[in-house]
Amino acid sequence: MPKNLSSRRRFIKTTALAAAGAPFFGGLVTKTFAAEPGRKLGFALVGLGNLSTGQLAPALQKTANCRLAAIVTGTPAKAEKWKAQYGIPDKNIYNYDTMERMADNPDIDVVYVVTPNALHAEHTIKAARAGKHVLCEKPMEVSTAQCQAMIDACKKAGRQLAIGYRCQFEPHHLECARLAREKVFGDLRMMEAGFGFAIGDPNQWRLNHALAGGGPLMDVGIYALQAARFVTGEEPILVSAVETKTDPVKFKDVEESITWEMKFPSGLLARCSTTYKFPGLNNFTVYADKGSFGMNPAFSYLGNRGFRSDGKELRFDAVNQFAVEMDNFAQCILNNRPTKVPGEEGLRDVRIMMAIYQAARTGKSVKLG
Amino acid sequence: MPKNLSSRRRFIKTTALAAAGAPFFGGLVTKTFAAEPGRKLGFALVGLGNLSTGQLAPALQKTANCRLAAIVTGTPAKAEKWKAQYGIPDKNIYNYDTMERMADNPDIDVVYVVTPNALHAEHTIKAARAGKHVLCEKPMEVSTAQCQAMIDACKKAGRQLAIGYRCQFEPHHLECARLAREKVFGDLRMMEAGFGFAIGDPNQWRLNHALAGGGPLMDVGIYALQAARFVTGEEPILVSAVETKTDPVKFKDVEESITWEMKFPSGLLARCSTTYKFPGLNNFTVYADKGSFGMNPAFSYLGNRGFRSDGKELRFDAVNQFAVEMDNFAQCILNNRPTKVPGEEGLRDVRIMMAIYQAARTGKSVKLG
Repeated sequence: MPKNLSSRRRFIKTTALAAAGAPFFGGLVTKTFAAEPGRKLGFALVGLGNLSTGQLAPALQKTANCRLAAIVTGTPAKAEKWKAQYGIPDKNIYNYDTMERMADNPDIDVVYVVTPNALHAEHTIKAARAGKHVLCEKPMEVSTAQCQAMIDACKKAGRQLAIGYRCQFEPHHLECARLAREKVFGDLRMMEAGFGFAIGDPNQWRLNHALAGGGPLMDVGIYALQAARFVTGEEPILVSAVETKTDPVKFKDVEESITWEMKFPSGLLARCSTTYKFPGLNNFTVYADKGSFGMNPAFSYLGNRGFRSDGKELRFDAVNQFAVEMDNFAQCILNNRPTKVPGEEGLRDVRIMMAIYQAARTGKSVKLG
Repeated sequence: MPKNLSSRRRFIKTTALAAAGAPFFGGLVTKTFAAEPGRKLGFALVGLGNLSTGQLAPALQKTANCRLAAIVTGTPAKAEKWKAQYGIPDKNIYNYDTMERMADNPDIDVVYVVTPNALHAEHTIKAARAGKHVLCEKPMEVSTAQCQAMIDACKKAGRQLAIGYRCQFEPHHLECARLAREKVFGDLRMMEAGFGFAIGDPNQWRLNHALAGGGPLMDVGIYALQAARFVTGEEPILVSAVETKTDPVKFKDVEESITWEMKFPSGLLARCSTTYKFPGLNNFTVYADKGSFGMNPAFSYLGNRGFRSDGKELRFDAVNQFAVEMDNFAQCILNNRPTKVPGEEGLRDVRIMMAIYQAARTGKSVKLG
């Protein structure tokens, strides 16, 4: 192993430890679980679509502090299948009408909301009222008002709320954030980021505005937005945007592709894009005074790669980002520490995405701040 | 040599031959030189700065149909040096006040204008009035009115006017245009392009708005704009832009960095950027339905490289882009064919750049077309 790779690995560990020692400055948590070393928190997965089936349930098997304890689904056939596959007892199987009964189920510590975007608030608030901590998939919701309601509900319940920003637990992203914030290549000047894919089934909820709240921007463009904010550590103060639609039948309800620009307080500019129309957009580059660095691919579950203009290696072994994300949230709960991806972080992205839509719609740049 | 590389090389040759046979549909040319096989056209270089010294004069030595016949300079010491180095007779050495006397100098067929941007019209018009063909460096001028005056002067004189778009003669660019226009990867959907550098001497004319007409957009951003137009074969119908300035002393007169978006009639979006502040921005990527391709670096004199998402090679031997550009113009003149980079092409870029500046200034997208 090259010496610099080793030292970078040490950095990642150090960062994780430093984060572990950070004081809780987030929402007020009045009632928490006592830290019990080795305890595994019970997770309830709400919504058994592709992400839960293909990623989250398998990832839960790889965690240190989590276990799949319960499911919430509106499809009895799915319940039967999961019950058999994961040995989930009947009492831990809920549907969307019964999930509030979780309140008297001590097997469940955390509810992971994996339903369509426009249902996140409903399911998060139900979980909070049942006294559960909530991990909610991105985008947090389809409006800032819904996001705020989720934050308020969890705060009122004295429970933590985290948003599923898996890339904030991915080692290449962490290393890029270190290179940026330690100014290893000097002051940051510009960033490019894009994430998109060619969407298949025209009948899926992602293409339904009422359920999705938007198109690729809400679904995957948010990764480019997150990367720009997370890597630079800055918040945009101005956005402009242009969208396009070549297939108004398939994309009658949501945007097809959108490209947007952001200006940050330091003067840094970012140009980002996303699409449901074509493959290949999956990377970011950060330009600084003394060179550049980034990732390509940047936002995949596996196979991400980093690069640096000085030719030094930017490579880490793959991690299961969902397992790390869930373990991190469990450890925050067990140790009464705040998550680094709280509801407020999700709200910020939704606010910016609404500004991007406004800029694209009006042809006028939108100030944020 | 791999078979596909060989076939691509054949394509480039075929393309060049096809271009050679294209009918003259450009400006009216009433008086032309008869084609004399093997004849070398005499070039006068106007402005002996870095480009003339480091690139154009050496490139002229490598051309088949051009020769360095004359110089125009306001600096007597430069005249002495060039006279000695290139064996230029005294009668072929001019300054900016005497260059109109070229009219009675049969050694000069083409005047290559390499002065600061805001002097291009003056020197082009003087050359045209002296009966010379004109090759003018990019950007064509600092306003569309000046561009039009140049076109009109050359048309009136019955002489050709070409703009120094060297990348239109670079084999990787030509191959990318072929991949785009033949839809080898299907319909084009999005393009990213950027070119910039960290500028040195704060006292150079490039930072003086009166001489440059703008900053990096006019100087090198134009390559990203050209790439988007040349590769796709489309003209933008909408632009939006955001600029930034972190050093208002050095960049008191021109923009420091600017990023802009363009929408094209097919629905294709392009996001582009340029800078005088940081290094490394020198690439483009084209995303299409079945994959992507592009160049990185894209706009260098040497060392450009292409890439394709299907892993096939996109690589050609380096050419001297200036030598090919000048030979092409000479052949156009000798054979009474129109250049593929006429004044109208330069005017289009200036018109779009003015719209980009307007969009950045007003925060409102600008419609074109």
